[in-house]
Amino acid sequence: MDVYGRMKELGIELPKAPAKGGVYAQAKEFGQGLIYISGCVPTIDGESPHGKLGAEISIEQGQECAKNCMLNVLAVLEKKIGDLNKVKNVVKILVFVAGTDEFYQHPQVANGGSQLLVDIFGEEVGAPSRSAIGVNALPGNVPVEIEALFEVI
Amino acid sequence: MDVYGRMKELGIELPKAPAKGGVYAQAKEFGQGLIYISGCVPTIDGESPHGKLGAEISIEQGQECAKNCMLNVLAVLEKKIGDLNKVKNVVKILVFVAGTDEFYQHPQVANGGSQLLVDIFGEEVGAPSRSAIGVNALPGNVPVEIEALFEVI
Amino acid sequence: MDVYGRMKELGIELPKAPAKGGVYAQAKEFGQGLIYISGCVPTIDGESPHGKLGAEISIEQGQECAKNCMLNVLAVLEKKIGDLNKVKNVVKILVFVAGTDEFYQHPQVANGGSQLLVDIFGEEVGAPSRSAIGVNALPGNVPVEIEALFEVI
Repeated sequence: MDVYGRMKELGIELPKAPAKGGVYAQAKEFGQGLIYISGCVPTIDGESPHGKLGAEISIEQGQECAKNCMLNVLAVLEKKIGDLNKVKNVVKILVFVAGTDEFYQHPQVANGGSQLLVDIFGEEVGAPSRSAIGVNALPGNVPVEIEALFEVI
Repeated sequence: MDVYGRMKELGIELPKAPAKGGVYAQAKEFGQGLIYISGCVPTIDGESPHGKLGAEISIEQGQECAKNCMLNVLAVLEKKIGDLNKVKNVVKILVFVAGTDEFYQHPQVANGGSQLLVDIFGEEVGAPSRSAIGVNALPGNVPVEIEALFEVI
Repeated sequence: MDVYGRMKELGIELPKAPAKGGVYAQAKEFGQGLIYISGCVPTIDGESPHGKLGAEISIEQGQECAKNCMLNVLAVLEKKIGDLNKVKNVVKILVFVAGTDEFYQHPQVANGGSQLLVDIFGEEVGAPSRSAIGVNALPGNVPVEIEALFEVI
């Protein structure tokens, strides 16, 4: 499987890796080919969407945000390793969903991010272990933030 | 130590591994014998309890939920590796406790989950590194969700 | 680079490792030289500060709390490995910031913790991958909690 051919078929184009928003590394390699990607927020049309699930943001918009977070995660990963075909395992993602105290459909929102991984890398490689949780607020009032752990060759 | 003998002594019976609630892998192996188990919610008498700490759920109920999340984590792990005697290290758990803005006893709740690990695997193997935090809402309005990292032979 | 010489130059003194606040291990080694440090809260002048960002706690106080969490993380790590010069990689930190529903400057708060790592270990080794998120409440009503993953020789 060539990842870029798959992405082209799916009409997926990687964005430019986002700018760093603080004192940290956007990607950190450790152990034998393990890489942690720092929490990415969505950027749609060059701007970060604002608001919370259960209020200004619908589930569909939240899923689009999760997909967009994941595109940023992959852009950061590509910048680090040069070629997404080197990905041999999407190990783990942690999906933070900013919502009201009565919003409980975090997994549906998170699916927008993990589905992209499955679409690009296939079920076996791409389906990560995952937690999806609610939080009362995220940086800059974005609706979703995702961090990820990859294993590469 | 045989894990199943210990569990029998303690009167602990593993539930059937829960159904998957989204697009992800319930367990993902990586590196040398490392396995991430996706966030598990509690199921008591076949249903997930609802509510939050500091409101509908007491600390004792929360501890029972945390224990039950962990039983589900172990059920998923057993489904993945076949035999819990292969566990050589419970590396890390992350315990999310849904509570009111004024509930601050997350560690007491989380103990319900980590105590089970110590009971089953013993202190040295079973006591994991841990974070226990509050969140304003969890999937399906469950009170507790736990993810875990194991090392197996 | 000798880590302790650097800390002396910076006027940084490690506190005594904090007491454990529940059923878990404060540090857990796994894989090849990987160590997870459990979530640490701040202790300033022997007491944990209370309150939330956006309410009782200012950004500057939050940064001081994050720095103090990290000092506790390093104290726990030193207790585990004996010598902080053995740190070869600060892999990952997860920074939980307790704030109001309208507080969105979690990364600025988290910088107080990650800057300490960069100051002590230098940019390449010390800058970790990071997520910084908001939560509605933390154990004991502390404003910040940080967990960390290190790689040591």
